[in-house]
Amino acid sequence: MDRAFFVARIGDLLDELRRTKPLVQAITNLVSMDATANALLAIGAAPAMVHSPDESAEFVERADALVVNIGTLSRLWLDGGEAAATAARMHGRPWVLDPVGVGATRFRNEAVVRLLRHRPSVIRGNASEIIAVARVAGISKTDGAPRGAETTNHVEEALEAARHLARHCFCVVAATGPFDVITDGRQVVRIGNGHPLMGRVTALGCALSAIVATFNAIEPDPFVATIAALGVYGIAGDMAAESATRPGSFRVAFIDALDTIDRRQLAARLKVIA
Amino acid sequence: MDRAFFVARIGDLLDELRRTKPLVQAITNLVSMDATANALLAIGAAPAMVHSPDESAEFVERADALVVNIGTLSRLWLDGGEAAATAARMHGRPWVLDPVGVGATRFRNEAVVRLLRHRPSVIRGNASEIIAVARVAGISKTDGAPRGAETTNHVEEALEAARHLARHCFCVVAATGPFDVITDGRQVVRIGNGHPLMGRVTALGCALSAIVATFNAIEPDPFVATIAALGVYGIAGDMAAESATRPGSFRVAFIDALDTIDRRQLAARLKVIA
Amino acid sequence: MDRAFFVARIGDLLDELRRTKPLVQAITNLVSMDATANALLAIGAAPAMVHSPDESAEFVERADALVVNIGTLSRLWLDGGEAAATAARMHGRPWVLDPVGVGATRFRNEAVVRLLRHRPSVIRGNASEIIAVARVAGISKTDGAPRGAETTNHVEEALEAARHLARHCFCVVAATGPFDVITDGRQVVRIGNGHPLMGRVTALGCALSAIVATFNAIEPDPFVATIAALGVYGIAGDMAAESATRPGSFRVAFIDALDTIDRRQLAARLKVIA
Repeated sequence: MDRAFFVARIGDLLDELRRTKPLVQAITNLVSMDATANALLAIGAAPAMVHSPDESAEFVERADALVVNIGTLSRLWLDGGEAAATAARMHGRPWVLDPVGVGATRFRNEAVVRLLRHRPSVIRGNASEIIAVARVAGISKTDGAPRGAETTNHVEEALEAARHLARHCFCVVAATGPFDVITDGRQVVRIGNGHPLMGRVTALGCALSAIVATFNAIEPDPFVATIAALGVYGIAGDMAAESATRPGSFRVAFIDALDTIDRRQLAARLKVIA
Repeated sequence: MDRAFFVARIGDLLDELRRTKPLVQAITNLVSMDATANALLAIGAAPAMVHSPDESAEFVERADALVVNIGTLSRLWLDGGEAAATAARMHGRPWVLDPVGVGATRFRNEAVVRLLRHRPSVIRGNASEIIAVARVAGISKTDGAPRGAETTNHVEEALEAARHLARHCFCVVAATGPFDVITDGRQVVRIGNGHPLMGRVTALGCALSAIVATFNAIEPDPFVATIAALGVYGIAGDMAAESATRPGSFRVAFIDALDTIDRRQLAARLKVIA
Repeated sequence: MDRAFFVARIGDLLDELRRTKPLVQAITNLVSMDATANALLAIGAAPAMVHSPDESAEFVERADALVVNIGTLSRLWLDGGEAAATAARMHGRPWVLDPVGVGATRFRNEAVVRLLRHRPSVIRGNASEIIAVARVAGISKTDGAPRGAETTNHVEEALEAARHLARHCFCVVAATGPFDVITDGRQVVRIGNGHPLMGRVTALGCALSAIVATFNAIEPDPFVATIAALGVYGIAGDMAAESATRPGSFRVAFIDALDTIDRRQLAARLKVIA
């Protein structure tokens, strides 16, 4: 799989995404609701925020993919997320786990343990979060507690944890940061797109996890789908940084870029190392 | 009622809105909190997001109008919405029901049945939602389940359901989309303003329902108030689309347009068919 | 303490803030999540929205400061806020109370009574809210019920209430508006920066309270920290108003300004009366 392969494959997926408008159910945190819904709409998907245990599982049948994000966690969200994850497994819908802030409190650690039982298709977090998930899952002893939503580790430090986690959970793991590492436990692909301003706008990591779910809705191979999502997202960041240099205007330019990005941008900008 | 009548009447209401700054209580979904509050502030109203059953009914006495929106529904929100709707009826405050995603889950259907008992002044939804409300209320058998917040039906398909619903519930019903249909069960008015980019920004439909509540706070005839709200909102969309072509910048331009719109814009742009 | 003192001191704090990136835990309302997190990131802090009683107290140990905001209040948020405030006192972390909408319902009044027991370092509200807190705390009989998040009183009317409250609670009290009054019960400082458009964007008051917490994380004297926060925030408003004249674009420019502001801007713009 060389760069030309990825450019063509991701281009096809982007076309299909915009043609089919997959319905993505997001059980996400309160800070990220607005950014996640707008990112999904901008890329061409249809968002549905449905978290209550009274309806989250029932809704999964209508959805094409699911993301469960544990930021601003409470019991209601966790119950709703677990019910939806169970339903996603039962109905064959891909689902993405975003373990925001895992390692910071016992409650989040226990939440991750509960959610991992329902076998996510992809786990997407920053380096510290991926390291913390591996530790919480009992397959690593390295400590990696993030500071709030921020990482204190570098992505390469998370690679071993990511690989073990992917093998242990039979899933794809993506540790994102200045560059991104994606692994299915054997193969490793790195994406070099993206811009530091992405870390200066709240919830862009959370919205990314929803975009990962989106690509998993149309691409059955979660490894390829996740690479596609991270490539597209990073390129949108590169594009936005060309017209905006401060976080407020960057956010606006970033949403515009998710709407603008096409095969030509992919061909010109994708930085992938397989 | 011809176009000149509406231009003059809506212009008067816009002036009064900005002079009196009605206080609009919004029990709305988590995705739309930010967009709704900013749309209310931009048009000239004062927003108050007060949903907890511990205070939602008590607050209604201070408010000039209420909107209850069932997106991201949970029991707490439903209890708070029902308590507030009861209080709105008791104290003579107009209230607007936005049945987001009705038809998608049993929980939302039951929520709509419960809320309809408290006689909303206006029901505002997309075509699929209006069709689903009519079915849930037992006055139509047509199926109209939306995909998340998106409609799968055209507005004209919803007209019969809207008319029956308006008569059955003694309220005004507005089905909004590429163009909008407003009916009190007898009369039908269509608004042709608005732009497709409005569907690419999250929660602009939810914010519209809050703007409908705002105009109902200052205009005692809910039919005229709803027409005014939809006309103003659609024109703001037209104005925004002249300076922004992508969803991120469109959102910013749209909020600016709600602040800018005046009699001159109404006279130049209003597309109303009575 | 003259103007030159404040310009130098606030400049030092701004440098330290950006060097140390304090972690600010925000238990804030649902409307303000996005604006608060983005304001914190733009100024240079690290936000962490952690409100559930299952983890809010445990997280305080990691945080450098805490803000508790009672907008969109529910029992869960109040329990989480009280647990966190207790922990903040125990671990010596500064915490800021933002009494949004106090005076409007019994539930909010009782919430303020409960939270005051945990001795906030700073109380930040608009004039009506500060007057209402003093009344609720039993140290004043003046009535000051806000309309939603809006004030109906002028800042100077709140000065006596602020002074009494500061003495009674051994804290700093800031009443913000067209200009701001800050008092520790003896000294009074006024800040004249800021722009009316700040009141046309939702949650900028809530985000300010989080910025007050941020400066308290790096400056042990809460009186100086609060003056610094209000000065920086008001100047960012002045800067934004030079490039944006409508609320949608003002919001974007304001976040950009929080990122831009530096010693030079402080020296040129700070309006402080000690």
